[in-house]
Amino acid sequence: MNPKKVAVILSGCGFKDGGEIYEATLTLLALDEADAVVQCFAPDMPQMHVVNHLTGEEMPESRNVLVEAARLARGYIKPVTEARVADFDALIIPGGFGAAKNLCNFAVKGSDMTVQPDVLSFAKGMNAAGKPVGLVCIAPAMAPAIGGVGTQYTIGNDAGTAAAINVMGGKHVDCAVDECVVDREHKIVTTPAYMYPARIREARAGIKKLVAAVLDLA
Amino acid sequence: MNPKKVAVILSGCGFKDGGEIYEATLTLLALDEADAVVQCFAPDMPQMHVVNHLTGEEMPESRNVLVEAARLARGYIKPVTEARVADFDALIIPGGFGAAKNLCNFAVKGSDMTVQPDVLSFAKGMNAAGKPVGLVCIAPAMAPAIGGVGTQYTIGNDAGTAAAINVMGGKHVDCAVDECVVDREHKIVTTPAYMYPARIREARAGIKKLVAAVLDLA
Repeated sequence: MNPKKVAVILSGCGFKDGGEIYEATLTLLALDEADAVVQCFAPDMPQMHVVNHLTGEEMPESRNVLVEAARLARGYIKPVTEARVADFDALIIPGGFGAAKNLCNFAVKGSDMTVQPDVLSFAKGMNAAGKPVGLVCIAPAMAPAIGGVGTQYTIGNDAGTAAAINVMGGKHVDCAVDECVVDREHKIVTTPAYMYPARIREARAGIKKLVAAVLDLA
Repeated sequence: MNPKKVAVILSGCGFKDGGEIYEATLTLLALDEADAVVQCFAPDMPQMHVVNHLTGEEMPESRNVLVEAARLARGYIKPVTEARVADFDALIIPGGFGAAKNLCNFAVKGSDMTVQPDVLSFAKGMNAAGKPVGLVCIAPAMAPAIGGVGTQYTIGNDAGTAAAINVMGGKHVDCAVDECVVDREHKIVTTPAYMYPARIREARAGIKKLVAAVLDLA
């Protein structure tokens, strides 16, 4: 059997202004354990902002999403504009605030959010081609935009955040940190991970199940 | 049984100028799976330099080791000056060039290297108290400085690098990526991880064994 080819879109490196590091690493670990072939991508653009992860305060500097995400990918990463639907069997987007600040603007606009155009184009293209999309943590804010109205998703048990995503057409399902939600009809798989104050082994369990479900649908 | 308390010293966030992200994450995962209680530390000082992980080129900016390492620790990190030997049962130092650029200067000085004074003080204190120290990837460059002359260690199978560390008093042992080397006498445990062009699941296997061996000696 040919290995499944999976695109992973990263949103920086560090959960307060970019990609959640453990979620991305655990996604790549589970994909490697399943013998998938992975290519990482990120938008080549400035981060919304830079946050000092020690103090939580904004820093007066500018960083590029692709350049910082390259830290998480050990340099093996391409601009998301180079992602082609025909080249992949599935897409996974780990979380962190970067998913809601750089890949879309949910963190600022709530249910009036838009998805970064190149990310949206690729993710919707994958969905239109019947290829599964996995979304971790807060990345499911993009579930309705990618999977369409009626897409089932989870962001754990945060009712306020779920309400804002439901306004956009999502159907929230409560989910434990070590589980995932599979919408077979819309081919969207989601797991809450660090939407909870998770232990890393709990995030590992949920993400491993998400990866298995995504590959099963691919 | 009381959980083992383990200090983890990070060296930044990104393997070209700081801590290797997968190694640090996989260390924290294995420690959590083993029910250890973890506290991360890093030196509060500027990185040796900042490297663009997309291009490999140096960037004209300055970043702080502790502030960047905080990305890897989700903010739960303290200056290494606050680490007390009495508070911990073991110490683990993941790799990445940061271990050889920020925690010591092996990357620049080779066998004339010195270890950052606060890191050395804590690590030698742990060793003197009979508490095990785990070193991943290139961090074993510090094995002789911490464990003393005659300490067995591995950096995989890189003969040139091993020769430079042997000059300082280390005894190199070749080791596969998914194994570790345990020096029970000097209480130093080492695994090569990304000293090889590793698959992430291989690094996972070696680091899981290192963590188990460290906790067994603690």
